[in-house]
Amino acid sequence: MLFQVEMTVKLPPAMPVEQAAEIKAREKAYAQELQRAGKWRHLWRVAGSYANVSIFDVEDNAELQELVSNLPLFPYMEIRVKPLCRHPSSIREDDS
Amino acid sequence: MLFQVEMTVKLPPAMPVEQAAEIKAREKAYAQELQRAGKWRHLWRVAGSYANVSIFDVEDNAELQELVSNLPLFPYMEIRVKPLCRHPSSIREDDS
Amino acid sequence: MLFQVEMTVKLPPAMPVEQAAEIKAREKAYAQELQRAGKWRHLWRVAGSYANVSIFDVEDNAELQELVSNLPLFPYMEIRVKPLCRHPSSIREDDS
Amino acid sequence: MLFQVEMTVKLPPAMPVEQAAEIKAREKAYAQELQRAGKWRHLWRVAGSYANVSIFDVEDNAELQELVSNLPLFPYMEIRVKPLCRHPSSIREDDS
Amino acid sequence: MLFQVEMTVKLPPAMPVEQAAEIKAREKAYAQELQRAGKWRHLWRVAGSYANVSIFDVEDNAELQELVSNLPLFPYMEIRVKPLCRHPSSIREDDS
Amino acid sequence: MLFQVEMTVKLPPAMPVEQAAEIKAREKAYAQELQRAGKWRHLWRVAGSYANVSIFDVEDNAELQELVSNLPLFPYMEIRVKPLCRHPSSIREDDS
Amino acid sequence: MLFQVEMTVKLPPAMPVEQAAEIKAREKAYAQELQRAGKWRHLWRVAGSYANVSIFDVEDNAELQELVSNLPLFPYMEIRVKPLCRHPSSIREDDS
Amino acid sequence: MLFQVEMTVKLPPAMPVEQAAEIKAREKAYAQELQRAGKWRHLWRVAGSYANVSIFDVEDNAELQELVSNLPLFPYMEIRVKPLCRHPSSIREDDS
Amino acid sequence: MLFQVEMTVKLPPAMPVEQAAEIKAREKAYAQELQRAGKWRHLWRVAGSYANVSIFDVEDNAELQELVSNLPLFPYMEIRVKPLCRHPSSIREDDS
Amino acid sequence: MLFQVEMTVKLPPAMPVEQAAEIKAREKAYAQELQRAGKWRHLWRVAGSYANVSIFDVEDNAELQELVSNLPLFPYMEIRVKPLCRHPSSIREDDS
Repeated sequence: MLFQVEMTVKLPPAMPVEQAAEIKAREKAYAQELQRAGKWRHLWRVAGSYANVSIFDVEDNAELQELVSNLPLFPYMEIRVKPLCRHPSSIREDDS
Repeated sequence: MLFQVEMTVKLPPAMPVEQAAEIKAREKAYAQELQRAGKWRHLWRVAGSYANVSIFDVEDNAELQELVSNLPLFPYMEIRVKPLCRHPSSIREDDS
Repeated sequence: MLFQVEMTVKLPPAMPVEQAAEIKAREKAYAQELQRAGKWRHLWRVAGSYANVSIFDVEDNAELQELVSNLPLFPYMEIRVKPLCRHPSSIREDDS
Repeated sequence: MLFQVEMTVKLPPAMPVEQAAEIKAREKAYAQELQRAGKWRHLWRVAGSYANVSIFDVEDNAELQELVSNLPLFPYMEIRVKPLCRHPSSIREDDS
Repeated sequence: MLFQVEMTVKLPPAMPVEQAAEIKAREKAYAQELQRAGKWRHLWRVAGSYANVSIFDVEDNAELQELVSNLPLFPYMEIRVKPLCRHPSSIREDDS
Repeated sequence: MLFQVEMTVKLPPAMPVEQAAEIKAREKAYAQELQRAGKWRHLWRVAGSYANVSIFDVEDNAELQELVSNLPLFPYMEIRVKPLCRHPSSIREDDS
Repeated sequence: MLFQVEMTVKLPPAMPVEQAAEIKAREKAYAQELQRAGKWRHLWRVAGSYANVSIFDVEDNAELQELVSNLPLFPYMEIRVKPLCRHPSSIREDDS
Repeated sequence: MLFQVEMTVKLPPAMPVEQAAEIKAREKAYAQELQRAGKWRHLWRVAGSYANVSIFDVEDNAELQELVSNLPLFPYMEIRVKPLCRHPSSIREDDS
Repeated sequence: MLFQVEMTVKLPPAMPVEQAAEIKAREKAYAQELQRAGKWRHLWRVAGSYANVSIFDVEDNAELQELVSNLPLFPYMEIRVKPLCRHPSSIREDDS
Repeated sequence: MLFQVEMTVKLPPAMPVEQAAEIKAREKAYAQELQRAGKWRHLWRVAGSYANVSIFDVEDNAELQELVSNLPLFPYMEIRVKPLCRHPSSIREDDS
């Protein structure tokens, strides 16, 4: 089951550089692990921003909450979620 | 080059049913043609709405304008566009 | 799987009274059928408005889309959807 | 008398981890006490967020204010309240 | 129990003058009847607008919904509702 | 001359508890003094919030500014003002 | 007593040209009459729009309501009102 | 003197096709005339929309108002204006 | 050439009182100097707020930027600018 | 390929003056380097603000992201991006 998740990162200006780097490194590792597991199906940068557009593929709402709330950057992001389903005009069987 | 395009359909309540059906049929044919051509890479329905989330793959901004403005439903939609690019944490080569 | 669905009805002022009455009657029958089927778990009026707050219990996003888009008032409503899941502080097993 | 209460938690990034944990523990105990007392009828997590959707069942507006303003997280939340009442299409006697 | 109700009237420009006058006359009679009954405690015009600020005094949310939804101008108004209660700094016993 | 004044308190999380208590005590004394003087005609808590709805009765705009800007919580509040006047459907002579 | 009044004209596209011209002519005559009477102290066009910024000089809120609600374009305008008073840094005695 | 002008066209769905075509033809002729006169310095389509971003070069605010309000599509557009001036980091003498 | 400038002051709560007083004193001196020079034509307090409505009379956009960006409170204000010009219904020659 | 980029600078009030000056100096050098390289085609100050309107000329979305995210002020700016293309009414060949 797919969800569009849009994340905008807002790090506090006062956060020490090393702390930010450490969080981002964990975020990257976690994001790549979820991608390899097939849970984070797409991940794009929005050009000109510190934001991304993502497509998650999860069992249900509870799994979405578990995956998203464990993001290392979760406390520092604005997140918008939209549930997706198959579009009647789509020609791709594996895209819903 | 990828763009996220979000479309919300707002048909005027006074539009005759046949006219709406005819426009929707042309929209569907056009959407499927663009998908087969590889230009409209993803098309999802936003659950609980008359809206979609789409990913377009185009040569440049001009082609995006050409494809979107020719949608039969174009005059009846609110459309939001975001330019996308490869995310540094993405593991998919073919997804940017 | 639960979703909060908030619906605000905006009937066009020019709609004939009989047509509005007919749509509302079908809406009521459909809403009660979905409640009896266990799909529309809660339905409340927002006091002082022509709006409701609802909780849907569906298999997945696709079923949510099917149920909501078939509402007779669907073309005349503003609809906001939020995916829900169990809250870690909830004490009710059957409420998620 | 029912109210929908939507709460979004915004803890200051600079709050020490222990202080946050202590507040959250008190919040959980308080939320469960109100649920057992029948005052906090439903409590759901909004998937992909640090927010909840709740249904309160109170005597009047004054009790709502008393219960909500005593939440340990009250100073750190954005809260939206909507008064609810029985919907004419509802089939549940005990749900208003 | 008190509620602040803010109403902004938006009559369709195409409504015939006589129809508008008839609705407004019924609105005025109804508003004055509710004031005499003690249900509509205050009614002020917002200067420079076709809007009012009102204070309703009702038994519960259900009565608020009944009174407001029966306003002859109800289909033509944007309405915002806020539940009120006694303020700890208020010195008036009869004002909550 | 009446004005509706809506105040939402936003104290900085880092403000020491004693400082906040001292400001609130002065706010309460000042609010009660203005009520006794007939300048602050109504004061209600918005249920479920740290906000109030107030009705001020002043000589002119300048007095409104003087009274509001001297509120001890003034630097920590979002304030919205609406000028009020007699509504043609009001039945109360003393309410405008 | 001064008020800033911002007006944006939104004539319905379907209004016949002659009707629009007649309303605008009455609006102009009325605006000039109020200016000559000293009630409409300033009237500026916002460049690049069908909107104006105005300063009204009235006895009280009630007169503001009377003058503004009698504007021939009143039913077709979005209007925002702000009460003004003397600024402590102003050097003009006659400008408050 | 430069202004950024952003225009979004919103033609009423009920406008006859011939009328729309006639207005658009006049708009195009007028836009090209102003470009040749050096008044409309830049004109870009916003990709994926029926909107443009423009840079006007005018004598003063009054000329901006004159040029913009004479656009044949003026009654059917949402228009946002921003005054521009030389940026201290700009390296182009002729671009302010 | 006239511009409407609306300024809302948002001083950081943590700013020392003396620093705030010093900035405000410089702001006042600067504002009065610009008024005497005829550049800051009107300056009004918005009643019930820490905001003002101003009318600037400048040579061009560049001078507006120079004057406004040199305000001592500039880093602490939200500022909205609208270019103004003569209104066709205005009767004052010297007011545009 | 052109993009309109609007940047609003929001430096934290607590940032030391020297740090701000150093970042701004690097920003200026970088902006002028990109202008000389033909990547940052236009750069205007929005009068009365700490914001700019820019036109970037890049190979694709990825280059836009690279250039914008390397701005020294990037962590302190609100940035809005719009993809541009040739307008059918434009008379300039080199402006798209």
